[in-house]
Amino acid sequence: MKIYADNAATTPMHPAAMKAMLRCMEECYGNPSSLHTTGQRAKETLETAREEIAEALNAAPRELIFTSGGSEADNQALRSAAALGRKQGKTHIISTAFEHHAVLHTLERLEREGFSVTLLDVHADGLVRPAELEAAIRPDTCLVSVMYANNEIGTVQPIRELGAICRAHGVLFHTDAVQAVGQLPIDVQAQHIDLLSASAHKFHGPKGIGFLYARRGVPLTPLIEGGAQERGKRAGTENVPAVAGMAAALKEAVAGMEENAARLRVLRDRLIEGLNTIPHAALNGDPIRRLPGNVSFCFEGVEGEALLLLLDDRGVAASSGSACTSGALDPSHVLLAIGRSHDVAHGSLRLSLGPDTTEAEIDYIVENVRDVVAHLRGFSPVWRDLTEGKAAFIL
Amino acid sequence: MKIYADNAATTPMHPAAMKAMLRCMEECYGNPSSLHTTGQRAKETLETAREEIAEALNAAPRELIFTSGGSEADNQALRSAAALGRKQGKTHIISTAFEHHAVLHTLERLEREGFSVTLLDVHADGLVRPAELEAAIRPDTCLVSVMYANNEIGTVQPIRELGAICRAHGVLFHTDAVQAVGQLPIDVQAQHIDLLSASAHKFHGPKGIGFLYARRGVPLTPLIEGGAQERGKRAGTENVPAVAGMAAALKEAVAGMEENAARLRVLRDRLIEGLNTIPHAALNGDPIRRLPGNVSFCFEGVEGEALLLLLDDRGVAASSGSACTSGALDPSHVLLAIGRSHDVAHGSLRLSLGPDTTEAEIDYIVENVRDVVAHLRGFSPVWRDLTEGKAAFIL
Repeated sequence: MKIYADNAATTPMHPAAMKAMLRCMEECYGNPSSLHTTGQRAKETLETAREEIAEALNAAPRELIFTSGGSEADNQALRSAAALGRKQGKTHIISTAFEHHAVLHTLERLEREGFSVTLLDVHADGLVRPAELEAAIRPDTCLVSVMYANNEIGTVQPIRELGAICRAHGVLFHTDAVQAVGQLPIDVQAQHIDLLSASAHKFHGPKGIGFLYARRGVPLTPLIEGGAQERGKRAGTENVPAVAGMAAALKEAVAGMEENAARLRVLRDRLIEGLNTIPHAALNGDPIRRLPGNVSFCFEGVEGEALLLLLDDRGVAASSGSACTSGALDPSHVLLAIGRSHDVAHGSLRLSLGPDTTEAEIDYIVENVRDVVAHLRGFSPVWRDLTEGKAAFIL
Repeated sequence: MKIYADNAATTPMHPAAMKAMLRCMEECYGNPSSLHTTGQRAKETLETAREEIAEALNAAPRELIFTSGGSEADNQALRSAAALGRKQGKTHIISTAFEHHAVLHTLERLEREGFSVTLLDVHADGLVRPAELEAAIRPDTCLVSVMYANNEIGTVQPIRELGAICRAHGVLFHTDAVQAVGQLPIDVQAQHIDLLSASAHKFHGPKGIGFLYARRGVPLTPLIEGGAQERGKRAGTENVPAVAGMAAALKEAVAGMEENAARLRVLRDRLIEGLNTIPHAALNGDPIRRLPGNVSFCFEGVEGEALLLLLDDRGVAASSGSACTSGALDPSHVLLAIGRSHDVAHGSLRLSLGPDTTEAEIDYIVENVRDVVAHLRGFSPVWRDLTEGKAAFIL
């Protein structure tokens, strides 16, 4: 069996997205800034895609700029809000400890530039408490950045409530929605979102393309300077085929969203139930308020990297944490943020299901994770200490 | 007839590039940071492409990082060199007045941050004089940035000489080679290049991908922060299909470079000869030291935008200047830099030939440019003044 259970890392492209991209590469290869017919055809394709994506978010087309992906969009969102804040004498930013590194590292850079950052507690369930956000807002707060759905443990924040609090206090609200777009309904107006980042390859679109939504009136600072593309907010020849592919992928994702999510939730819960029968194993994050396809576990006395390599041998593609930090020796900052110990955090496994995942695959995964965990514990000194009573079980 | 003569704006994809990209989207869609087989297959594809591209430049694979295109590479090159310079107390940069806006706007930003910038004269022939570069270097010069081939007038700089001067003075040398890669031979070692920017869609590769070469020992500052991709120099999931497409396109371009260039030069010179028969018309830039496929003219008493729209009606896709600034009312900064007057610069036309251009197309272009220029002059008040002796001809 060959199972791809790493859809949070990246997804295979939807055939409709590939088709849109190919059509564009063949038929409208022009530069959208060129005034001739070939260029204008590309421009039309670009703007039609922008309209389609905007509509899916209840945004206006001119509120979207296209970026090379989620990381670029996160960087630009935070740096733009910070630049505006500095102009207004506001240099305090609120975020959480378990954001993606594209946010956390940009925050560190802003701290070096004189900003102060408050990271909200995400509690053991991986959820921000709206009251705690409200309490953290200061007169000099210029930005709140909370990710829509976490990339490792999949917990989904109460975005509308968080957004309403920010709006009431006149503070900009950014959400890294890279894991949410195409999986969860998004309405930037109803949810009071000022800035939103997305990446196409997470919803079966092409790699190398994403977008940044910035509510009308929220000024963006260009990260890449040069030509006047994207109304001066993002220089560089527009990647029209990828944008067309992204629009097609999002259209498919939104059209099938409800049905797909319902199906995934059943599979996800079956997988959680199965893995819960393994001793000294625990689900990471809230069991309900999580992405429909996300399952994240910690297994005591197991090394996560060994676990996923052995699963790979058995045909299961999974992840220990996020793909962006794979290979790093440090335990996941996300798992530490929800209170896992260093040792336990090292034994993590993320399984992220997709539209092709079947019930038979779920059962195969459960059986093989059980096997591999038992096998690894067989020669784990940590596990021996635990079973011999020299150390205390946590999970 | 349908003629695409705007290859400097963007190029149609080479079938081999499209095939490589498609294969990758279908077969190695994994995230290269994932440890499982699907991820590692993507990683292998990425690294093979890096090796192939490095080889084409006589660089080492680890001296290349992939960016979203030429503008991003330019921004990062300049900001990295400036950051290094600041650390060493060197805040003077040398460039030219006719660089791409990705360079010029970044230089303006650096000036606001305290750097001083000297712009070298590019003379009427569009060429930098090595002696003038050497004279401009100061003890506090940290960077020289001169574009390999100009995007509007196509003039090709004496890169090896400029590089040697910089190396001798211990100053970093960056070249925006967006128009040169795939058209002209590049050897970063022999040419003493420290930093080089490139964009795939200019050499029949995909849009949204490019690279930045940084000689070993030249530290890059990330423009986009987040995950540890590209050895911490450029965050964001790697765009593996586009990288594979870029490598395939470069391979084709390099393999056919000599033959293609020889063929293009013949066509280019035939086009120049033909357009030179139009009265009060002049070639922009040196007739020999220019890209094999670039023809740039000014026609007195003609408005460039009208010219290219009428040519488009006749099936010829051309440009008035660079695509990046099309639609702008200001005359081209490139043409002003080589000494064209505002009026004359407004009557510019760039024709950039490609591998599919034929002799019959050249003759069609000449005939139609002649026609359209005569037509436009027929109701141009500027032309009337000139012919009635109320103003003096320049060209």
